[in-house]
Amino acid sequence: MSKALKNRIYLEPEENPTKWYNIVADLPTPMAPPLHPATLQPLQKSDLAAIFAEELIDQEVSQERFIDIPEELQELYRIWRATPLCRARNLEKALGTPAKIYFKYEGDSPTGSHKLNTALPQVYYNHKQGITRITTETGAGQWACALTAACNMFGIECMVYMVSISYHTKIYRRSFVKLYGGEIVASPSNLTEAGRAILAEDPDCSGSLGIAISEAIEDAVTSKNTRYCLGSVLNQVSLHQSVIGLEAIKQLEKIDEYPDIIIGCAGGGSNFAGISFPFFPDKMAGKDIRMIAVEPMACPSMTRGKFAYDFCDTAKLTPLMKMYTLGHDFIPSGIHAGGLRYHALSPILSHLVHEGLVEAKAYGQSDCFDAAALFARTEFIIPAPESSHAIKAVIDEALAAKEAGEEKTILFCLSGHGLYDMAAYDKYNQGDIEDVVITEEELAESFAKLPKVE
Amino acid sequence: MSKALKNRIYLEPEENPTKWYNIVADLPTPMAPPLHPATLQPLQKSDLAAIFAEELIDQEVSQERFIDIPEELQELYRIWRATPLCRARNLEKALGTPAKIYFKYEGDSPTGSHKLNTALPQVYYNHKQGITRITTETGAGQWACALTAACNMFGIECMVYMVSISYHTKIYRRSFVKLYGGEIVASPSNLTEAGRAILAEDPDCSGSLGIAISEAIEDAVTSKNTRYCLGSVLNQVSLHQSVIGLEAIKQLEKIDEYPDIIIGCAGGGSNFAGISFPFFPDKMAGKDIRMIAVEPMACPSMTRGKFAYDFCDTAKLTPLMKMYTLGHDFIPSGIHAGGLRYHALSPILSHLVHEGLVEAKAYGQSDCFDAAALFARTEFIIPAPESSHAIKAVIDEALAAKEAGEEKTILFCLSGHGLYDMAAYDKYNQGDIEDVVITEEELAESFAKLPKVE
Repeated sequence: MSKALKNRIYLEPEENPTKWYNIVADLPTPMAPPLHPATLQPLQKSDLAAIFAEELIDQEVSQERFIDIPEELQELYRIWRATPLCRARNLEKALGTPAKIYFKYEGDSPTGSHKLNTALPQVYYNHKQGITRITTETGAGQWACALTAACNMFGIECMVYMVSISYHTKIYRRSFVKLYGGEIVASPSNLTEAGRAILAEDPDCSGSLGIAISEAIEDAVTSKNTRYCLGSVLNQVSLHQSVIGLEAIKQLEKIDEYPDIIIGCAGGGSNFAGISFPFFPDKMAGKDIRMIAVEPMACPSMTRGKFAYDFCDTAKLTPLMKMYTLGHDFIPSGIHAGGLRYHALSPILSHLVHEGLVEAKAYGQSDCFDAAALFARTEFIIPAPESSHAIKAVIDEALAAKEAGEEKTILFCLSGHGLYDMAAYDKYNQGDIEDVVITEEELAESFAKLPKVE
Repeated sequence: MSKALKNRIYLEPEENPTKWYNIVADLPTPMAPPLHPATLQPLQKSDLAAIFAEELIDQEVSQERFIDIPEELQELYRIWRATPLCRARNLEKALGTPAKIYFKYEGDSPTGSHKLNTALPQVYYNHKQGITRITTETGAGQWACALTAACNMFGIECMVYMVSISYHTKIYRRSFVKLYGGEIVASPSNLTEAGRAILAEDPDCSGSLGIAISEAIEDAVTSKNTRYCLGSVLNQVSLHQSVIGLEAIKQLEKIDEYPDIIIGCAGGGSNFAGISFPFFPDKMAGKDIRMIAVEPMACPSMTRGKFAYDFCDTAKLTPLMKMYTLGHDFIPSGIHAGGLRYHALSPILSHLVHEGLVEAKAYGQSDCFDAAALFARTEFIIPAPESSHAIKAVIDEALAAKEAGEEKTILFCLSGHGLYDMAAYDKYNQGDIEDVVITEEELAESFAKLPKVE
């Protein structure tokens, strides 16, 4: 039986990565530094000490190409990693494409998405420092599930501010958080000044990741022995998520494959970073690889945002970062892909998009649900609405390859399963999925509030 | 890095089973034959032709030890099989037991449970015969998800009668069925005579698997080009599920392990059959292996039922089988483990329990949820409420091994994940799980209605 029959490629545990890959060491041009929100001067490590654990701050600013994964974390990763590299043969057949479609199935993680890859190290380093309580925000709840599960392992309290609209629709991710002993509230909440201020203006506010970040940071800096964790956007997150791409490289080697195109959805950008960044050294060395980050039309930071300094949160508590942004108080409509409802994008990924090294695409959610349904019916996996954006782009590229008669090899990240998103699929089953178009006026209004820097 | 660090053992695709194992060839004593419900004479193959596809009838009565898995099915199995053999090291640590705990993770299947192992072959053989529509019943919905996904692959219509109480609580398994193009109604329904008769007596009837089977069979035999499929109980199902145990044997060999105890939950008995039956040749050859089937106290067919001829359904449409039964119109209370709410048990498994080759245990659901929560928090997998019964028994055996200071090796089947059962975990989070005790009077009343045979 030939290796070509393998639909899933794994790794032996001893083949798992022992170091994370840090793309910052390989950037062709330097990134703009983060700025202190008050002084507008480049941020110092000490400015972050009240927010993040020390080793995480070191990783955040590290220029090292590789950073050792502590043995204890390697052992925890081995609970489920390496995730399988799967070939979507049935989807290929359904599309009639000569393209070969591979995906890393991060939904195979015990918490259902790639988020655990960074939740474990973040909690680990906080625990090592003696921190006993962690705060965070969450959109669709994938991050909350991962962080509370990780906190539970280390005996750390976890406090989650969940974007209100997702709190009320992704109810079973809430149940998950509670099962693992986490505390979870809808954001904006009455627990923080940031939340109360927004509720005073709009008691029915559906929330946003930017608002929830403000609440979680405020809670962290005003509470005892507490730090804040973030599931995307940060350099440390891209670092931790590199295990996805590092594994994929080894798995593809086993079957003598190499991707022509790498695709991932991007909200903050962490799963896209994970699957694609480890391939950058090859790309910079001249290898012809297209990399495509996919976002929702309802929150189009890459395709319609500004590349500018902005806050990561709504209440302006965070440093200023140079990144693609729709403006820090942009509140996206309530699309089902709650994890992609972020006004901005990881500064590293923004830098790469700005440099033309990563392409950006945006799709409406009805097209994405069609793609997800086809994928589910052919490949037997129900994708998270976030991941469906990647799948839509994969299908388009596979059909383009068919049109051109080219046997392209496509690799994408299936960042999470949609088993907690069945309420969204119910709407889809009922033909009740709406697309949202943002007007130029809305954007202009939001851009007008960008901080004035430079 | 030693093999002992592996928490998950897989197989290479070429190591996957190419034949199913049929325990009927190895039974130490013959089973009582199924009887025709009208004549009470041993059933003929022709009696089943209106209900099942022909090749499935052949498998149902086969005495062959091994039956070839068609190449096309082997390829479909390879989409997700072999499922991982996992070691529950964190659970072991939490219990402080010297026992080694291994489990086959069938929740890793694309439909979330072991049910796809038999759904695919059943649909395959029906499709091969030109059948265009399949009916079935489902309890918690694991079987419905598997069957509709399989039907979707072969372009066959699927009609599901879902036990009413589960229809209204496991709502996302309904959504799954619809996403895959299946039709699903609450049972008892108005679509069949059997359903209408029961609704006339009790309009609020919460349903049972026995009732839903009656409806699905009636639909099959009265509809054009339609056959019926069943997800448990039958010999063919135990046959197909043998892939679980056959894989486990090879996976354990890879790490030089052999189980002292094999555990699975049992409703109809299919996942227990799958994990344990392939070990029987060793057991019959003198190997010391304990096998423990676990059922809910609320539906205690093995521990409090009669070993007697009974119908598999409530409306008495099926052949009479000799098996452990609580009586064909016993309606179990609405426990969360909807898949274990069956009045009887696979005749093969019943035979083995009766012969003393398999031990039977029963637990209340609150103990099982405690076990499931401990498992979820230590092993990062949320078990289906059905599977939690196996976990409770595993924990008890591991603690007994600790007490005795014995390094036992325990193998169990984690038959499915609980991601569609989060409503039940919500109740658990709120301290709202009730145990149900069946009185002797209730049982006596039900036993009085057993058919008079012999």
